[in-house]
Amino acid sequence: MISTLITGIGELTTNDPELGRLTDAALVFTDGRVEWVGPASSAPVADSRIDVEGRAVLPGWVDSHTHLLFAGDRTTEFEARMAGRPYTAGGIAVTVNATRAASDADIADNLRRHVAEAVAQGTTTLETKTGYGLTVEDELRSARIAAQHVDEVTFLGAHLVPPGADPDTYVALATGPMLDAVAPHVRWADVFCEQGAFDEDQSRAVLEAARAKGLGLRVHGNQLGEGPGVRLAVELGAASVDHCTYLSAADVDALANSSTVATLLPACDLSTRQSLPPARRLLDAGVTVALASNCNPGSSYTTSMAYCITTAVLQMRMTIEEAVTAATLNGAKALRRSDVGHLSPGARADIHVLDAPSTTHLAYRPGVPLTHAVWRAGVRQR
Amino acid sequence: MISTLITGIGELTTNDPELGRLTDAALVFTDGRVEWVGPASSAPVADSRIDVEGRAVLPGWVDSHTHLLFAGDRTTEFEARMAGRPYTAGGIAVTVNATRAASDADIADNLRRHVAEAVAQGTTTLETKTGYGLTVEDELRSARIAAQHVDEVTFLGAHLVPPGADPDTYVALATGPMLDAVAPHVRWADVFCEQGAFDEDQSRAVLEAARAKGLGLRVHGNQLGEGPGVRLAVELGAASVDHCTYLSAADVDALANSSTVATLLPACDLSTRQSLPPARRLLDAGVTVALASNCNPGSSYTTSMAYCITTAVLQMRMTIEEAVTAATLNGAKALRRSDVGHLSPGARADIHVLDAPSTTHLAYRPGVPLTHAVWRAGVRQR
Repeated sequence: MISTLITGIGELTTNDPELGRLTDAALVFTDGRVEWVGPASSAPVADSRIDVEGRAVLPGWVDSHTHLLFAGDRTTEFEARMAGRPYTAGGIAVTVNATRAASDADIADNLRRHVAEAVAQGTTTLETKTGYGLTVEDELRSARIAAQHVDEVTFLGAHLVPPGADPDTYVALATGPMLDAVAPHVRWADVFCEQGAFDEDQSRAVLEAARAKGLGLRVHGNQLGEGPGVRLAVELGAASVDHCTYLSAADVDALANSSTVATLLPACDLSTRQSLPPARRLLDAGVTVALASNCNPGSSYTTSMAYCITTAVLQMRMTIEEAVTAATLNGAKALRRSDVGHLSPGARADIHVLDAPSTTHLAYRPGVPLTHAVWRAGVRQR
Repeated sequence: MISTLITGIGELTTNDPELGRLTDAALVFTDGRVEWVGPASSAPVADSRIDVEGRAVLPGWVDSHTHLLFAGDRTTEFEARMAGRPYTAGGIAVTVNATRAASDADIADNLRRHVAEAVAQGTTTLETKTGYGLTVEDELRSARIAAQHVDEVTFLGAHLVPPGADPDTYVALATGPMLDAVAPHVRWADVFCEQGAFDEDQSRAVLEAARAKGLGLRVHGNQLGEGPGVRLAVELGAASVDHCTYLSAADVDALANSSTVATLLPACDLSTRQSLPPARRLLDAGVTVALASNCNPGSSYTTSMAYCITTAVLQMRMTIEEAVTAATLNGAKALRRSDVGHLSPGARADIHVLDAPSTTHLAYRPGVPLTHAVWRAGVRQR
């Protein structure tokens, strides 16, 4: 039980309702947990001591939406899209083919590489989804590999009806034998409820079957246009509905009166040349808003939570504080985790030190890599 | 004269009209200059050999517009702007006060820190401007310090009429004794031709006086609305007119029929919540378009050329090739430099290796730090 004192913190974002944001602060962690937080002048003695010389410290990012069980890339599709071809859900099939053809080792290596890239930029909790297998064996393989490397794993058998398959037959598989096989390895289930993927009835069937198996629910909804995703997520008590790019007034009301988090994925919207999501409408209505990367090789190939925050502030009119909360505490809420996303005593010691005096610099200095140091559960990552 | 072979280049962007873009390529540099470029299979023997294992290689960024002679920061102004206060030229005075109060050593340290940050992200040629001194002594000091640390220095005495000063008296100073003092230390002169800064007559006086002293001309124009900046820049044969956010049809025509480069500063437009500049209109009309960071503590506090490129592709509909050319070769054109911005034999060995197989990843992977290695004039920087 070696204790570490981080002192000289210029600005400490705790996300703790009592502690708030401190200046000239210090923090002690022991055995992977935060032990003490307060003014630098009254910090206790610890076994080791690190002076961060006025830098800002905040909880590590909680990236609550990624798709990292894949092989191959989609540079060509991206280039075509930038040349004017619209984004559709169908491109997923390209990654499905590449993923099925890859070895376990290749999929695990690719996952590890992307997780390491994210951690080096300050991400300390990461959710990832299956969904590029779409057979019982391939989905099971993805879930098993994911469980070895990330905090939270989501079954997304209902990502796309595999090309050539009958939709009803596929939904029966994804709610039957595939779900049975994968459920023991995951905490969450998700469905891509969108034109070209799964309609309302199919999405409901997927979510209800998963809930009956004891899985928590997440929904991809309202990405490419208004649709039933948000409504369904709220009705079924999903932890989060992700994308929320196109929302009706009724969708915003439903979210405001629910415990479902609206997770916005602005890097995806920019990478697919959609509108940016209506963050201000959601926040002003009292909805809990999270930000996530949606890292995947098709529609949003980034691990950069800082890019999401910069975009949210400069282009979606979120305040810095709202954006940082969305990428930490509210990401944790979207995963129904109370141990991460904040730096209260007892929280996991997931600590992000910026090469800047305040979190404002995440938007004030767009694109500049600002991660100075990262600890995850008290273990130095960078 | 030690020669170095870089081999295993997955994609080599030379910006050479004959060589173009090569795959499976190699490059040799000797004594700070590119000596040979061609297929990896026919590379000559060299004294040392580096295998970049399929990565993309391109010329280092040419950042043709920064303001790095400053002290202090403007976090508070940025936060107020994000809360809805509009951007005006007046904030410059805050930095003028901080800069005048700083020691030579503090100004030089701050400059070095920002140059190092830029170089670590792949920038190998950097222009910077005076303009936070606005007295003879302070402008001269800035120019002297800049000349020790960057490739290209611009006199921007006409950045703002200092608060309390009489505009005509100040223009007389900036075109007289101040210009006389600074001119021996700089290659360029610039004027902020904008509402709240200098009007058309004042701008013309500044530029004509500088030209008479043998300085090359640059203009800040059309940032906050349509105005005379572009027209004046073209008429007086300026190397570049920078910002170009609001352009009339006549402005675009004038640029298309000139050798004046239109330098776009998208990080500034986003940081001040302006529109993004009409890159497609300019490119489709045949204008030479450059991209630059405009790094300064008020309106665009970034050194990230990658962020500018990402924004240009995702949001301004430039192609990757157009954006990369704009940030390398056309940045060099905006500085009338033929030795940088390309990797033809004889060019300065300014080499940027990406942690990616192609330059497409600069937009495909928004926000992910992709700089793997950097050489400037053949000297490894990172």
